[in-house]
Amino acid sequence: MAGSSFGNAFKITTWGESHGAALGVVVDGCPAGLKLNEADIQAFLDRRKPGQSKYTTARAEGDEVKILSGVFEGLTTGTPISLIVYNKDHHSSDYSEISTYYRPGHADLTFDLKYGFRDYRGGGRSSGRETIGRVAAGAIASKILKELGISFLTYTLSVGMIKADPENFDSEYILENPLYMPDRDAAEKAMAYLDDLRKEGNSAGGSVECRINGLPAGIGEPVFDKLDAGLARAVMSIGAVKAVEIGDGTAVSSSTGYDNNDFFTLKDSKIEKKTNHSGGILGGMSDGSEVILRAHIKPTPSISMTQETVNKNGDDININIKGRHDPIIVPRAVVVVESMAALTVIDLLIGNMSSRLDNLRKIYC
Amino acid sequence: MAGSSFGNAFKITTWGESHGAALGVVVDGCPAGLKLNEADIQAFLDRRKPGQSKYTTARAEGDEVKILSGVFEGLTTGTPISLIVYNKDHHSSDYSEISTYYRPGHADLTFDLKYGFRDYRGGGRSSGRETIGRVAAGAIASKILKELGISFLTYTLSVGMIKADPENFDSEYILENPLYMPDRDAAEKAMAYLDDLRKEGNSAGGSVECRINGLPAGIGEPVFDKLDAGLARAVMSIGAVKAVEIGDGTAVSSSTGYDNNDFFTLKDSKIEKKTNHSGGILGGMSDGSEVILRAHIKPTPSISMTQETVNKNGDDININIKGRHDPIIVPRAVVVVESMAALTVIDLLIGNMSSRLDNLRKIYC
Amino acid sequence: MAGSSFGNAFKITTWGESHGAALGVVVDGCPAGLKLNEADIQAFLDRRKPGQSKYTTARAEGDEVKILSGVFEGLTTGTPISLIVYNKDHHSSDYSEISTYYRPGHADLTFDLKYGFRDYRGGGRSSGRETIGRVAAGAIASKILKELGISFLTYTLSVGMIKADPENFDSEYILENPLYMPDRDAAEKAMAYLDDLRKEGNSAGGSVECRINGLPAGIGEPVFDKLDAGLARAVMSIGAVKAVEIGDGTAVSSSTGYDNNDFFTLKDSKIEKKTNHSGGILGGMSDGSEVILRAHIKPTPSISMTQETVNKNGDDININIKGRHDPIIVPRAVVVVESMAALTVIDLLIGNMSSRLDNLRKIYC
Amino acid sequence: MAGSSFGNAFKITTWGESHGAALGVVVDGCPAGLKLNEADIQAFLDRRKPGQSKYTTARAEGDEVKILSGVFEGLTTGTPISLIVYNKDHHSSDYSEISTYYRPGHADLTFDLKYGFRDYRGGGRSSGRETIGRVAAGAIASKILKELGISFLTYTLSVGMIKADPENFDSEYILENPLYMPDRDAAEKAMAYLDDLRKEGNSAGGSVECRINGLPAGIGEPVFDKLDAGLARAVMSIGAVKAVEIGDGTAVSSSTGYDNNDFFTLKDSKIEKKTNHSGGILGGMSDGSEVILRAHIKPTPSISMTQETVNKNGDDININIKGRHDPIIVPRAVVVVESMAALTVIDLLIGNMSSRLDNLRKIYC
Repeated sequence: MAGSSFGNAFKITTWGESHGAALGVVVDGCPAGLKLNEADIQAFLDRRKPGQSKYTTARAEGDEVKILSGVFEGLTTGTPISLIVYNKDHHSSDYSEISTYYRPGHADLTFDLKYGFRDYRGGGRSSGRETIGRVAAGAIASKILKELGISFLTYTLSVGMIKADPENFDSEYILENPLYMPDRDAAEKAMAYLDDLRKEGNSAGGSVECRINGLPAGIGEPVFDKLDAGLARAVMSIGAVKAVEIGDGTAVSSSTGYDNNDFFTLKDSKIEKKTNHSGGILGGMSDGSEVILRAHIKPTPSISMTQETVNKNGDDININIKGRHDPIIVPRAVVVVESMAALTVIDLLIGNMSSRLDNLRKIYC
Repeated sequence: MAGSSFGNAFKITTWGESHGAALGVVVDGCPAGLKLNEADIQAFLDRRKPGQSKYTTARAEGDEVKILSGVFEGLTTGTPISLIVYNKDHHSSDYSEISTYYRPGHADLTFDLKYGFRDYRGGGRSSGRETIGRVAAGAIASKILKELGISFLTYTLSVGMIKADPENFDSEYILENPLYMPDRDAAEKAMAYLDDLRKEGNSAGGSVECRINGLPAGIGEPVFDKLDAGLARAVMSIGAVKAVEIGDGTAVSSSTGYDNNDFFTLKDSKIEKKTNHSGGILGGMSDGSEVILRAHIKPTPSISMTQETVNKNGDDININIKGRHDPIIVPRAVVVVESMAALTVIDLLIGNMSSRLDNLRKIYC
Repeated sequence: MAGSSFGNAFKITTWGESHGAALGVVVDGCPAGLKLNEADIQAFLDRRKPGQSKYTTARAEGDEVKILSGVFEGLTTGTPISLIVYNKDHHSSDYSEISTYYRPGHADLTFDLKYGFRDYRGGGRSSGRETIGRVAAGAIASKILKELGISFLTYTLSVGMIKADPENFDSEYILENPLYMPDRDAAEKAMAYLDDLRKEGNSAGGSVECRINGLPAGIGEPVFDKLDAGLARAVMSIGAVKAVEIGDGTAVSSSTGYDNNDFFTLKDSKIEKKTNHSGGILGGMSDGSEVILRAHIKPTPSISMTQETVNKNGDDININIKGRHDPIIVPRAVVVVESMAALTVIDLLIGNMSSRLDNLRKIYC
Repeated sequence: MAGSSFGNAFKITTWGESHGAALGVVVDGCPAGLKLNEADIQAFLDRRKPGQSKYTTARAEGDEVKILSGVFEGLTTGTPISLIVYNKDHHSSDYSEISTYYRPGHADLTFDLKYGFRDYRGGGRSSGRETIGRVAAGAIASKILKELGISFLTYTLSVGMIKADPENFDSEYILENPLYMPDRDAAEKAMAYLDDLRKEGNSAGGSVECRINGLPAGIGEPVFDKLDAGLARAVMSIGAVKAVEIGDGTAVSSSTGYDNNDFFTLKDSKIEKKTNHSGGILGGMSDGSEVILRAHIKPTPSISMTQETVNKNGDDININIKGRHDPIIVPRAVVVVESMAALTVIDLLIGNMSSRLDNLRKIYC
């Protein structure tokens, strides 16, 4: 079954493997008339590019994007936008060994069991490089949303047990540190923690928080295409994400109705919530306040510490995975989470255009 | 935009409001040849039926289901199965008051902002009764899965701060207590806690855990229709769910690669994992071990304690919500979570049939 | 695989069998704020109701529709609209015989080969009664389109070899004759022809023409969801339709570029076509002129003349089909063709709302 | 709205413009384990390549295809297959003139009216080159179908008024003449006719017939995803097609039930039809006999004869279109029709795998 498309009205289809010729995405349903060039997209891709600090893999990929269709004289035409990034620094020879066994925490085994065999070079389709298409498409979605006054703020909320402190929150610091944390103290502690783990050949998990501002109320379609349901799918589909929270998230299960309900009040003749436990979503629709979601991301499974596994002959063996691996995936996942959130929002925003007959009249009468 | 369908190959479409004439679901794509009668479906609906204990609303609905199509001589025919439940005990007059203000924690405001007005009787489409269609369809999905050796165990994991202790886990006790908890001690503490909350007019949150056994490996479609992504969307689409976890869930973000990776070993000439931090899903596909997911559910927003809100005239007011409300939604949500999981699994199981050319040969050659 | 849904943004799902308890449709994605009552829908259903003349089956069904959800205080709410029609005059006993053999021209054999068995009562799901859901949904689509200034004119163009003459075209006469022909002379000849066929136990085919006026230009999505492609699928999905034409249709294959091209000219400062060979569609999008399509419908396969077939034991046998059958399906198919056209148009009209970034600005800025 | 995807389980997404950098397609949902290389696809593309005779445009494109993903060690992996063809011989300068007016019979006007402007170079997305993606994907679908014993025979049935005579049918001759006609006499007459038209700067229409053999019975999903409905959409979505017929097609409307019904008989202990008026489809499902469909294709709209139109300033003008145009599109459309038919069939064939519970047991038990 086809599984590489996301979105209905604004639909993306990604393709490509870690060590194939190229990776890319087709963005179908982008409204005509958006100013778009390769630099717009490159800026997003650069946020997930490898080799930028000692906390990411040393693989040297420029990840330079080309627009192959759908843009004419600097504007989107309404027809599919095809984006491509060629693979360059792929040392497939590095991977001859891993073809013979199943790496713990990876999809090697499940790919074999599903399809009968796998493209083992660099993880094939299950590689983190698969997210290139998501981010390239996310850049376009984000640009449209920005035109409509909708903005995203996404960052590393925690690394291991070290969590950014809301008291120290500094949004400008996010892009100034390789971990994309919004708290200088936490970032420094996290870097020390990662240095230790790297030395022992281990890796760390962490969490990403994404906040969406300016989203009109009413976005999301009851009952299966709710905004939170869409965000949950979108973010959980990113490799290594194991939990998704909206607003107070897991904390709601130990709260009470009185504490968890956000009271309404009138402010500047607009109904607002006094608190935001709901994370900006009520009944699956945006409620006009800031949308807040968190993704919990598991530690990089590729570690050089000795691990136990099974090889293709069915022998129990010990392995030490070599190669160029990130000691933590989280910082590079920040822009992926943001992209998936943007793709979810643009699709539901378009879907909502027909929620009222009056909207059809605005366009057609 | 249409948002009331779930699934591609096995597609359900739900409809109906809390105080309309009826609620129902159309199940399209059910394979022919399944023995099915109303009792199969009723058994599932009875698990979410109101009025069964003091922990659920006193609304007296039999929630009796009728099969209107798609079954002939006791077997599914392959054509759409239409299921209907008529509403009986709807006191719409109870709700005349709530039409005048926005209840905190509810979807009243977002429905108004999206559609321009709302069916305010009992929450309309945003009522928990909307899940009748999900559960009726889930009963059918579960019956097919059972035929294929796939089973579900779902229960209330926690109520407020009170959590079932794995040491005391008793699967038979689940159906013996009104909270559907698998731990007698925890259930008793939870009931005492709920009694206290009820007295003060407050409500509690909690969490549900669902375990799936017997699922073949390889189910789930990279990269957007992964099993975990599908489950996350399915479960987050249930009203009041604010977080979804797979396997170790939120705990992975503070773990390390060495601790979080599940080592492989050979057992009875089959590759197995020594642990199950992954919750039975690797690379978005089932890995052959038990699938584990958790949903965190917010406290019932309808409470009789005094709350602040805004009325239609734009006045800040205080309210005390009357009516027949559950002090906790969680127990009745257990079967809803299970149903949504079953619907996700059956759809991906069918989708996976074409993963290999050899499977097409098995059917057609 | 599910196959009973049509449309993306405005999605319908039909269900029900000829002799089951009821038939119906769920209309999901209908914009909120449309005035709608049962009479609006009944008017459409009455155009396909049986027993209205000697040219339709004598089965006496009131085909009375009930709205079960999605409408509140006379307005659509934006949530799914569930419509139901109960079966009344079903003589299942009439059909005990046809369970034993395969009727030529019917789907008995293909249902058996696909699903392993079939609901043989009155053709089950392959009965013409399946179109009740289409027409009920079509009534809603048409009402929205009418609000936007888009109207339909649909009629029987030909019965057997007898074709309505454009010179005699009388749109008011369409609803005045049981064949829904727009030409009094042709209708009278057709009735005489049908009387003869009925006497010998035979049946006739015919064609339906549908014209759509007021459709804005640019409706239809290149390259697979073009307006003509959508109309072709919609109309060909009606049982008994064997050909679909747009504009000059089959005649284009024997024309030349010079004769077939429609020249443009300026009229009242709007670009118009001097002719309409294209049938109002260029490049798969409406071009602003009248959209014209034709459906060719085969003769009723149920005839009382002696036919050869095979029974369940594998014997070659001769049969004479009894029961209450239409000598021609075409007149009752007129409203079905119109409904499927309306459903196609409304879905693409909504889809087109996001064709330009400016349209998003109109709704959200 | 996105409109460039076709298929559900076997989904293709095409992209690219006539004079952009490249054109291509992503094929998602292709089963793993199919032997596939570029030559398999090239063979199909060569059948639609320009510049092969005086009856096709002189544009010199090699149309060389590259596989960018989804194939590993000669086998499809189950992940998306990305195919690309670079544009080479695009003389965009030829088209500077046509940017200033609307060509009759083309989509220039409708693109402008839908999107606000258009990529006018060579027709942009509405160019016949858009079909490259369809044909490349169709080659893969056809290869799978061939493995399952399903084959296609497609040819030019008529050119203008000149129709292939069934008496002279010679399937081997099809690939031996530039018009792909199956009748030597008809082909010669057609070439003479085209020579005359070319001299006067005019063009011809024609029809294509496609026959599918070996298709199992029961393929197609009642009621909206019927085989004939899918084929009609697929083929009508090809630019220039204005009518689609199944089996006897338009002729059924003037036939009678007795003449049009195909009688059943037992042959080699299998139920067969004595005739094939139905074109191999009953009730929207394949009936086990040869599937037959026809597409009627309008004459090339680009002609050098003087035509009337309007320019961007709103002046009525006369034009003579220059450039390299096919005097007839039909021969190059043959492989496009075949490809769209193959894509329709593979998708429904996969969809049908879950028609019976027993099929799920075959795969999973």
